[in-house]
Amino acid sequence: IHRIHPTHGIIGEEFGNHNADAEFVWVLDPIDGTKSFMTGKPLFGTLIGLCRDGVPLVGIIDQPVLEERWVGIVHHGTTLNGQVVQTGDVVHDLSDAMMYTTDPQMFREGYELERFTSIRDAVKSPVYGGDCYSYACVASGYADLVIEADLGVYDYAAIVPVIQGAGGYISNWEGGDLHLDKHDTECHGRVVAAANHQLWTSAIDLLSSDTDG
Amino acid sequence: IHRIHPTHGIIGEEFGNHNADAEFVWVLDPIDGTKSFMTGKPLFGTLIGLCRDGVPLVGIIDQPVLEERWVGIVHHGTTLNGQVVQTGDVVHDLSDAMMYTTDPQMFREGYELERFTSIRDAVKSPVYGGDCYSYACVASGYADLVIEADLGVYDYAAIVPVIQGAGGYISNWEGGDLHLDKHDTECHGRVVAAANHQLWTSAIDLLSSDTDG
Repeated sequence: IHRIHPTHGIIGEEFGNHNADAEFVWVLDPIDGTKSFMTGKPLFGTLIGLCRDGVPLVGIIDQPVLEERWVGIVHHGTTLNGQVVQTGDVVHDLSDAMMYTTDPQMFREGYELERFTSIRDAVKSPVYGGDCYSYACVASGYADLVIEADLGVYDYAAIVPVIQGAGGYISNWEGGDLHLDKHDTECHGRVVAAANHQLWTSAIDLLSSDTDG
Repeated sequence: IHRIHPTHGIIGEEFGNHNADAEFVWVLDPIDGTKSFMTGKPLFGTLIGLCRDGVPLVGIIDQPVLEERWVGIVHHGTTLNGQVVQTGDVVHDLSDAMMYTTDPQMFREGYELERFTSIRDAVKSPVYGGDCYSYACVASGYADLVIEADLGVYDYAAIVPVIQGAGGYISNWEGGDLHLDKHDTECHGRVVAAANHQLWTSAIDLLSSDTDG
């Protein structure tokens, strides 16, 4: 990337950052789901995101064992191995939703765990494990929701265009846009992805509500 | 099965039981990991076990998406698509072990959750999600431990020969054999599988210890 696009920036989980304030920035995670990779579960993936002025525009989720590659472009669509995919628009109530979470221990005691628990108790069923493949399952119309925390920008920059291109919604827990510059100030590593607008607004209501209220 | 072996029994998750007291009993689970299957995660599998006098002797774990089939025969070996596989013999300490659990909510409050928490805190890292594929990862030498509860006989009858044939150890939480007739009296749906004898004895020590001790 550096040789072909010398003005572009790169943010990588494994290789550090380079020119991260550039107009175009590539966000790379060579192996998302390291524990899955180590233990033989083929749900890990390579994530490649391209952001413009901090906004994720193009994303790739590549799963080499299954030979599956999702490519999402905002306002343009999402494909799986070249075939257009779309998120589900049948499940609209949380009580009917299948919700992915990679690891229940990613939620810190207090604020995060309380809100995760409230949405876990509201959905039809939580499903654990999945890494980036969880979001791919939402993009392909199989899963309804993903709720996670403790993520880095390299964990979601590639995911955002895949979900949005497929017709889904993805944001921080307060419903705010996922933007490279807002990671520390607004996102705090907390991400929700939903198959459709109704599920997303219901999830945001629970995730952003005051626990004392 | 009934036509070819009329004297054999069948225990199935989906179809009920037939002649379950026969010398030879087939234990079938057409789709283990229903939630994974529903949400697009290719870790579900078809389980076929053959027991003699209640003891699992032959087991098959079949994953159709990945086209992977593990076949285990006690005292004979385990193969993956025809190639011999063996469990890992490098990790001997719990503190180095990667441990699979399908769902942290499978452990009931009290006894089960306390013991699961103690072993979760002792291992290097828990990994969630996996269904029957977790055990296949142990058989193939990638994962070190699986701890689960709330299982039916159809969830583990096919798994036992796959783990044992690959050189691993599998038992109830007290270290007792998994046997069709001991499900309700000794196993109570609680299963531990380990890659080698050292890991297994360390896990049993934690899982069977008195919480008050």
